[in-house]
Amino acid sequence: MKTSAATQHTAQNPDSTCLSTILNARSIAIVGASDDPGKIAGRPLAYMLARGYTGDIYPVNPARQIVQGQTSYPSLSAIGRPIDLAIIGTAAERVETIVQEGIALGVKAFVIFSSGFAEVGEQGRAMQDRLQQLASTHGVAIIGPNSLGVVNSRNGLIASFTTALENTPVVQGGFAFASQSGALGAYWLDIVLRSGLGFSQWITTGNECNVDIADALHHLVDDEHTRVIGLYIEDIRRPLEFRKALQRAATAGKPVIAIKSGRSVAGQLAAASHTGALAGNDTLYDACLSQFGAIRVDSLTEMMDMARLLTQGATPAGRRLGVMSVSGGAGVLIADACEPFKLTLPAPSEPTKKALREILPPFVHPANPLDITGNVLQDTSLISRTMDTLTQANEVDAIVLFIGMMHSIADVFTDTLTKAKQSVQCPIIVIWVGAMEESIQQLEAHDIPVFLDIPQAIQAIARGIQAHEQRSRMATQLSPNTYQLAGALPATTLSEWDSKQLLRTQKAIRLPAGTLISETPGTKTAAPGFPAVAKLQSAELLHKSDAGGVILPLHDQKAVDDATQTLHHKGQALGIAVQGVLVEAMIPFDHELLLGLQRHPRFGPVLSLARGGIEAELDPDVVTRLLPLNENDIVMMLEGLRSAALLQGFRGGPRVDMQAISQSIARLCDWFLSQDLAELEINPLAVKGDQLWALDALITTGTIQK
Amino acid sequence: MKTSAATQHTAQNPDSTCLSTILNARSIAIVGASDDPGKIAGRPLAYMLARGYTGDIYPVNPARQIVQGQTSYPSLSAIGRPIDLAIIGTAAERVETIVQEGIALGVKAFVIFSSGFAEVGEQGRAMQDRLQQLASTHGVAIIGPNSLGVVNSRNGLIASFTTALENTPVVQGGFAFASQSGALGAYWLDIVLRSGLGFSQWITTGNECNVDIADALHHLVDDEHTRVIGLYIEDIRRPLEFRKALQRAATAGKPVIAIKSGRSVAGQLAAASHTGALAGNDTLYDACLSQFGAIRVDSLTEMMDMARLLTQGATPAGRRLGVMSVSGGAGVLIADACEPFKLTLPAPSEPTKKALREILPPFVHPANPLDITGNVLQDTSLISRTMDTLTQANEVDAIVLFIGMMHSIADVFTDTLTKAKQSVQCPIIVIWVGAMEESIQQLEAHDIPVFLDIPQAIQAIARGIQAHEQRSRMATQLSPNTYQLAGALPATTLSEWDSKQLLRTQKAIRLPAGTLISETPGTKTAAPGFPAVAKLQSAELLHKSDAGGVILPLHDQKAVDDATQTLHHKGQALGIAVQGVLVEAMIPFDHELLLGLQRHPRFGPVLSLARGGIEAELDPDVVTRLLPLNENDIVMMLEGLRSAALLQGFRGGPRVDMQAISQSIARLCDWFLSQDLAELEINPLAVKGDQLWALDALITTGTIQK
Repeated sequence: MKTSAATQHTAQNPDSTCLSTILNARSIAIVGASDDPGKIAGRPLAYMLARGYTGDIYPVNPARQIVQGQTSYPSLSAIGRPIDLAIIGTAAERVETIVQEGIALGVKAFVIFSSGFAEVGEQGRAMQDRLQQLASTHGVAIIGPNSLGVVNSRNGLIASFTTALENTPVVQGGFAFASQSGALGAYWLDIVLRSGLGFSQWITTGNECNVDIADALHHLVDDEHTRVIGLYIEDIRRPLEFRKALQRAATAGKPVIAIKSGRSVAGQLAAASHTGALAGNDTLYDACLSQFGAIRVDSLTEMMDMARLLTQGATPAGRRLGVMSVSGGAGVLIADACEPFKLTLPAPSEPTKKALREILPPFVHPANPLDITGNVLQDTSLISRTMDTLTQANEVDAIVLFIGMMHSIADVFTDTLTKAKQSVQCPIIVIWVGAMEESIQQLEAHDIPVFLDIPQAIQAIARGIQAHEQRSRMATQLSPNTYQLAGALPATTLSEWDSKQLLRTQKAIRLPAGTLISETPGTKTAAPGFPAVAKLQSAELLHKSDAGGVILPLHDQKAVDDATQTLHHKGQALGIAVQGVLVEAMIPFDHELLLGLQRHPRFGPVLSLARGGIEAELDPDVVTRLLPLNENDIVMMLEGLRSAALLQGFRGGPRVDMQAISQSIARLCDWFLSQDLAELEINPLAVKGDQLWALDALITTGTIQK
Repeated sequence: MKTSAATQHTAQNPDSTCLSTILNARSIAIVGASDDPGKIAGRPLAYMLARGYTGDIYPVNPARQIVQGQTSYPSLSAIGRPIDLAIIGTAAERVETIVQEGIALGVKAFVIFSSGFAEVGEQGRAMQDRLQQLASTHGVAIIGPNSLGVVNSRNGLIASFTTALENTPVVQGGFAFASQSGALGAYWLDIVLRSGLGFSQWITTGNECNVDIADALHHLVDDEHTRVIGLYIEDIRRPLEFRKALQRAATAGKPVIAIKSGRSVAGQLAAASHTGALAGNDTLYDACLSQFGAIRVDSLTEMMDMARLLTQGATPAGRRLGVMSVSGGAGVLIADACEPFKLTLPAPSEPTKKALREILPPFVHPANPLDITGNVLQDTSLISRTMDTLTQANEVDAIVLFIGMMHSIADVFTDTLTKAKQSVQCPIIVIWVGAMEESIQQLEAHDIPVFLDIPQAIQAIARGIQAHEQRSRMATQLSPNTYQLAGALPATTLSEWDSKQLLRTQKAIRLPAGTLISETPGTKTAAPGFPAVAKLQSAELLHKSDAGGVILPLHDQKAVDDATQTLHHKGQALGIAVQGVLVEAMIPFDHELLLGLQRHPRFGPVLSLARGGIEAELDPDVVTRLLPLNENDIVMMLEGLRSAALLQGFRGGPRVDMQAISQSIARLCDWFLSQDLAELEINPLAVKGDQLWALDALITTGTIQK
């Protein structure tokens, strides 16, 4: 359920079965039901009558006694029987009264089509807030307002006015969809139905005054007929709840495929430091989705490609593909497509080559890709024995078979393949250029997904494997504790000196020895070691180097004294409140990272690790993840940097102890969570062997409200 | 025509009209013609009879008097009338005799279906070489052997046995295809026919004993009905001729879309230096295609998407898109898709906003993307006036309109749009999720391309614009002179000293002052300046630094003397033939590049420019182009480096005079062409302002035979 950001982690969840109540309703009232089956409030009735919904339907329309041949009631109260679900398609102004009436009658769930709420302005928002309040107070579930509704393919429940159902029969399947856009929801439904793939349940959440996308995801994880879940997301109002639902989906083995719009909207946080800039909003959505192995795609087409693979359960268990092709050129194109995704085409072992030679005609060279011919394809025994040989040797994780056209012998081929499938132990994935719809459906009825060209097949396979790997590595469990936002303190940015003083209370990251030389010019204090660096300290000076506030290297006390005096004058010239000059010993190091930790007002605590130095500015190299994160998660983050090879001792360069520094970073994360901090940036975070040094640090205490 | 590599630039081209003779033949003999219309040598006759080819067809089959209802002849000679084209579908062994007979009769062109030639082994290759010799000696054109043939949609000439024509009528269009794979050619034909896009001519080149892909491209540039050319390439036998054809296509304004298989095959050149490794074979194909604005795609699907845009002439003249969408979410997804391709959605100017407000209903906010509604779409006058307003203001280069489904009102919408198109000045591109085939064809009949989803549309638009930009920048003209391969000298790798001595004969790139200190230990020579560097010289030592053969910096003569002695001992320890120790003044510089020039045995002279230093090894940043290249081409190469910003003065860093150094590199290229060199590598090529310094150099003279 949607709640405001301020109260989100204390909000009462709706009864987790509320969506189940809606999708499995046995009695439905349609308030505002129209006799015209083409009108918004006429369509659900028309659809359910035509598609054989077996529950009770009560049209409510005070102006008519009969609606589409059904007895009509003047009001919800007049029905006089229990109502599981009320669909409301009236003018916006009447909705609140109807919901109140329903609540009084014991109706537990509402689907509100009516528009004219928050999407049109303040007055609408006020009406919507009152609906939200009603739902919250009375513990009922509301989908919408401004929702295109919901459909359950299993019982013919169509609480929707989508035109996607106008001319297309409902096809049952294992693919479900929850969408924050009615339009995209309708297009999805249209594509899924016309492709023959079918679906289990379909939910559009509308304005989300109560039931939101996280609820929908939780519900679909529980739905027995749903095997794969598609999402269209514009905004995740409750990231923690959403992440819990993602975690449950992963645990339940139900892959999630998500479109999240707004990739290109530059970071919506106006950040005071690099951290904010590096961890823009889309990055957080991306982290949120990928950490639990959801597959992010950019279009409905890509979602359908993914779903073809996943609903057939045809994700290979590993990255080794055995490719069979009727065209040598196509085999090469498949190898080309595999390389960027790190999918491999291992050459057959000598025994497997021998076995293949025994089976196949002499003109077929036993290799991978295996260039067979159309003639071989038509021979049931040959195709089946070749596939068996390839898979029994356990040298590949899936068979990818490429063919084209074959319109006149399509049936022979599909028979051949479905027979072969009975004995082949690994997934069989077919790329069939020019495949007919019937052939696709015949093969997919036997768990053999069919793609129409090479790139879409290989991309789907690679994404499926990657998400599977991610889900299998899922380590830390979510808990509300780790998700706490910053306290209500006003945001205060500390100077480097103050930041480091605070940082000294943790023990994970080392700090150079340093002395603050007070603002009285001429004060002299011994430097903590040579060479040293002198840095002007002021909470008003965020970018010291750019402002000329750093002098280094200082090789003797005289140089330190001169630098201190120069910097004090600098501060005066800049007209800023100077805290002093920090003189520190310079620390030799091998590598430079940037570490950012922040409590995001919506996503909670976030860790960014980036390559430091000018290279990173030229072409940022950063990995962002939502907490909680353990040591292994952080190893994976570091390995995910493009420049990871540098840390691993590239070309004889110095190696980093990845496990040790990851452990230190994990401990720093724990410390950050225990403090009342909004943001911590360490830049550079110097690395040498198993040691981490915070050479510069910037802390913001309190809450960032952005 | 294919010729061996050794003779390729002296080979006689076939008469440039030979393919035109074939595709426009008025009299065709089919040798081996079968009475069975399903057999290979029966199909062309059956197809041509059914599709109304109006020329004369003479089946040749000594075993029959009538073939498929037509008078059959016992031999070519027995026909007794002029024959423009002979199709040969007999056993391989009979082909040579038939071609000889045809040549004697004055037949100028042959399409050979027969397989069993070079593709099966040495004996087949010998037969094929004799066919090649026949073609060359007698000046006739041969397509094949092992070819799936050719089709001309305009005159019903079907000299092919492809099954793609079995059940599908020929549809005329402006898209042509030349393919080195019969299978891929057939799939292309199947897709093009079933999509309704249609085609002009279709050519599969088979084993290319004579007519090759370059000839096919030349021919399609000349064909009046061809507007867009598709290619499937496995191997370009005559890159110069192919590049000439590409250049002609660009000049003629005919876009070329190419699939080149083998992206992932790691460099086929075993290179003795970095240059070879950086400029692997696929890189050369890529350079060859992109330099004249050919669009490289990875699949037939992508080729079809490109063709939709290009055959409609709907490539925008610039990168500014005006997006109209019936769904807010889809508008955001379009903006998301545009960003990586640097396509922009400029906000409307104030006057345009005002004009839009006057036209559109109050609930439509004048922005880009413009979120209209389905209702607006159905109003001819509104949609047309909105589009006119957007384009007349000259603030966008194309209108991209997103809609979904609308099955029941598809006709209304297509009418609306085709009317609007009459007055709109820029391309209109439609993304229609769930579009029906009829609607697509209606719109495309009015030059409005239709895509089924967002990513494929935006990718096609971006590629179209990029290729257009590339073609419009095309500068240098090809000439055989610049393409000369290295002479027949044996390849000899020179030491750095000898390489630099040779390099001193050019004036474009500076060389540090240096002295070679002979191999007599103890010889002392004054260093040419300090700090200095000492480098062990030996033609046997390619990687001096790795072997400890470089000592720097040397700050005084004593250090130089010590280093010289150390290096001489090093040479003795390594057991290599030492030429001496090179002592050079160290040159201060701002940036480090790597320059490679080589005469590739097939592609001719090639220039690679790369970022130098360890960053480049971690993640290579290289641009490779085929010569000739002028100064502006080289500016574009440098701008094409990912790290180009560094050269341009990133974050206050030192700037390079791009024009000046590009001019120097262009002069170096000219010098390279004038010398008998196989390879030149300068690494590092130090850059400071307008100066280039060759700090190290490696030259290989003679011919590289790989």
